[in-house]
Amino acid sequence: MDKDRLDPWGTSTVKDYSRLRSEFGIEPVAPLLPRFKRPSPHLSRGIDFGQRDLGRVLDAVDNNKPYAVMSGIKPTGDFHLGTKMTADDMVYFQSLSKKGTVFYAVADVEAYADNGLSFEETSKIATRNVADILALGLDPDRAVVYLQSEELKVMRLGIVFSKGVTNNMLRAIYGERQIGLYMAALFQAGDILMPQLPELGGPKPVLVPVGADQDPHIRLARDLAARYREEYGFIPPSSVYHRLMLSLSGSDKMSKRTEGSLLKLDDLPREATRKISTAFTGGRDTVEEQRRLGGRPDICPVFDLYRFHFAKDDEHVHRVHEECAHGIRLCGECKQEANGLVKAFLEDHRKKRDSLMKDATELLARSREYLTSTGK
Amino acid sequence: MDKDRLDPWGTSTVKDYSRLRSEFGIEPVAPLLPRFKRPSPHLSRGIDFGQRDLGRVLDAVDNNKPYAVMSGIKPTGDFHLGTKMTADDMVYFQSLSKKGTVFYAVADVEAYADNGLSFEETSKIATRNVADILALGLDPDRAVVYLQSEELKVMRLGIVFSKGVTNNMLRAIYGERQIGLYMAALFQAGDILMPQLPELGGPKPVLVPVGADQDPHIRLARDLAARYREEYGFIPPSSVYHRLMLSLSGSDKMSKRTEGSLLKLDDLPREATRKISTAFTGGRDTVEEQRRLGGRPDICPVFDLYRFHFAKDDEHVHRVHEECAHGIRLCGECKQEANGLVKAFLEDHRKKRDSLMKDATELLARSREYLTSTGK
Repeated sequence: MDKDRLDPWGTSTVKDYSRLRSEFGIEPVAPLLPRFKRPSPHLSRGIDFGQRDLGRVLDAVDNNKPYAVMSGIKPTGDFHLGTKMTADDMVYFQSLSKKGTVFYAVADVEAYADNGLSFEETSKIATRNVADILALGLDPDRAVVYLQSEELKVMRLGIVFSKGVTNNMLRAIYGERQIGLYMAALFQAGDILMPQLPELGGPKPVLVPVGADQDPHIRLARDLAARYREEYGFIPPSSVYHRLMLSLSGSDKMSKRTEGSLLKLDDLPREATRKISTAFTGGRDTVEEQRRLGGRPDICPVFDLYRFHFAKDDEHVHRVHEECAHGIRLCGECKQEANGLVKAFLEDHRKKRDSLMKDATELLARSREYLTSTGK
Repeated sequence: MDKDRLDPWGTSTVKDYSRLRSEFGIEPVAPLLPRFKRPSPHLSRGIDFGQRDLGRVLDAVDNNKPYAVMSGIKPTGDFHLGTKMTADDMVYFQSLSKKGTVFYAVADVEAYADNGLSFEETSKIATRNVADILALGLDPDRAVVYLQSEELKVMRLGIVFSKGVTNNMLRAIYGERQIGLYMAALFQAGDILMPQLPELGGPKPVLVPVGADQDPHIRLARDLAARYREEYGFIPPSSVYHRLMLSLSGSDKMSKRTEGSLLKLDDLPREATRKISTAFTGGRDTVEEQRRLGGRPDICPVFDLYRFHFAKDDEHVHRVHEECAHGIRLCGECKQEANGLVKAFLEDHRKKRDSLMKDATELLARSREYLTSTGK
């Protein structure tokens, strides 16, 4: 892969978020912050750093107009702290107005194309994933959850779009890839644009919260929205980008591909403790050095645990950052505190999730019925 | 397109059928003819000239084992004399044994990718096409007819296969094409291999009757059958190839793309008469010359009407050929006779077809129910 191209199927994290603006035209979120009454931790902590046309969705919220929040999560296993970020954003942006509907694509086509998981395996994982997002706060009454591979509307849009792209266009966006990944990309554009089909209420603002590395999919979907505007009336989809969390080894983004340094939402507390205790940190070689120079929270996956997920509030994040940077807080005590927070979250989440398995099954069934009843 | 490559999406006919054997490994049908109790006109007249593994299907017939006959026809309009040939073959090979089941894919994905027809348009055309093939003799009790774009089994196989092919492999078979056609090709491999899925009775011989120009699809499906044999137990699909009929202008194959020189099964007799009267022939410039040198039936689309469809029997074909080649028969009288035969067929066919529209609708509904009931 070209190093200057974002790789939605890779493991690398984004080194320089400011470049995304200059090179790809992603706009900063900051100027829009005053429009949020209760910004989410992702917003207030600069985790959701970039956007395209987010204002259009906020207009819908302000004017009490319908909008959709759409994202896909690959059912490659239980949710982990990386997928939780996308899920948190879906939940938050759904909560902005009663007119917001979440479309959650269980991306089993991509899981097959990219990770080789069979549809049988992924359909089992899917129900647990849905219970996870319900436990994180998704309102099931305004959510449509479906498996990509079961949704003919998505397939058909993918086929329609395959005629509207050239191979050169796909190469420019994704680099030279095997056809399976190009096809998965076209089906994802189908996911993103499906909420605007006439049988699902027609054109509307759609916000896609994703990790920064997924921007190629957004560009493709926006390009296709323009190409098929005449036929479908598509409004270009909006997007909001979150920073990528570091894996516990400190290199690469946290994803299923870095299994050993991944915190999963169904890890037992003792597994989590073990992973955190062996995690890379931004600490120095000796205590003396750390007291003198301070730690480096900005390259530290343990600090990321606070910032991205487990700090009590923004002040807490700030305090941990300052104490670390000024050599007041050492890695051992910091890991211990993080461990306590993670453990409390995991225990609480497990209980909630287990109690929501039936609701997850029902949501999947109700969504299937809804999508089928709206025709093919 | 490379001239040495068969083009399943083109208009050209095949100039030299013997080359298909040497270059692509298509075997002649002739050595297998003694195995047919009642050879079809296509077989006895050398119209079905080539095959791959046809013997495997004949073994199933002889041993009273299940087999399938599978082909796809694009719903780009009413059946014409070109599509009738594929339909005739499907009907004939179904009739060889009570254990033969036809799978007829209404190739609306390909019609979209290749011809830009919307799924709404093609679904209307589909029912008329199904009535056409019923009028041609298809036994509806052993037939499954489905729209490609509605069949998740086909979509999923296409997605599975997209991971098993390389771009180079697709380029080698089809030349450099846009992704839409590659995708359509993968879904067609899904059509061809679907009858062997466990929920549809598992591995079995499958015969695909197609025009000679469609061999690239067969090669792709056979290649994929081998690649996925371990997982699915696929038996390589068999094929039988018919010669391509000339359009009435004498150049190109008869297809929807040569509209003006196309005889359609719903043409009114007077339209057919007009088209035949202006058709190109293998006749000479003057009557004197034709009497002296004879006509050229082998380049004559009017002779093709006799040979491919409307002669009373093989002897009739032979007689027309000889009378023409020896200058006994002139084009005017030959066209007149052809016209009478075509007219009688069209009138009879129209009546049958109109009376079978309800059966067609039922067959489509029954097939949909069957495929859905066998799971996704």
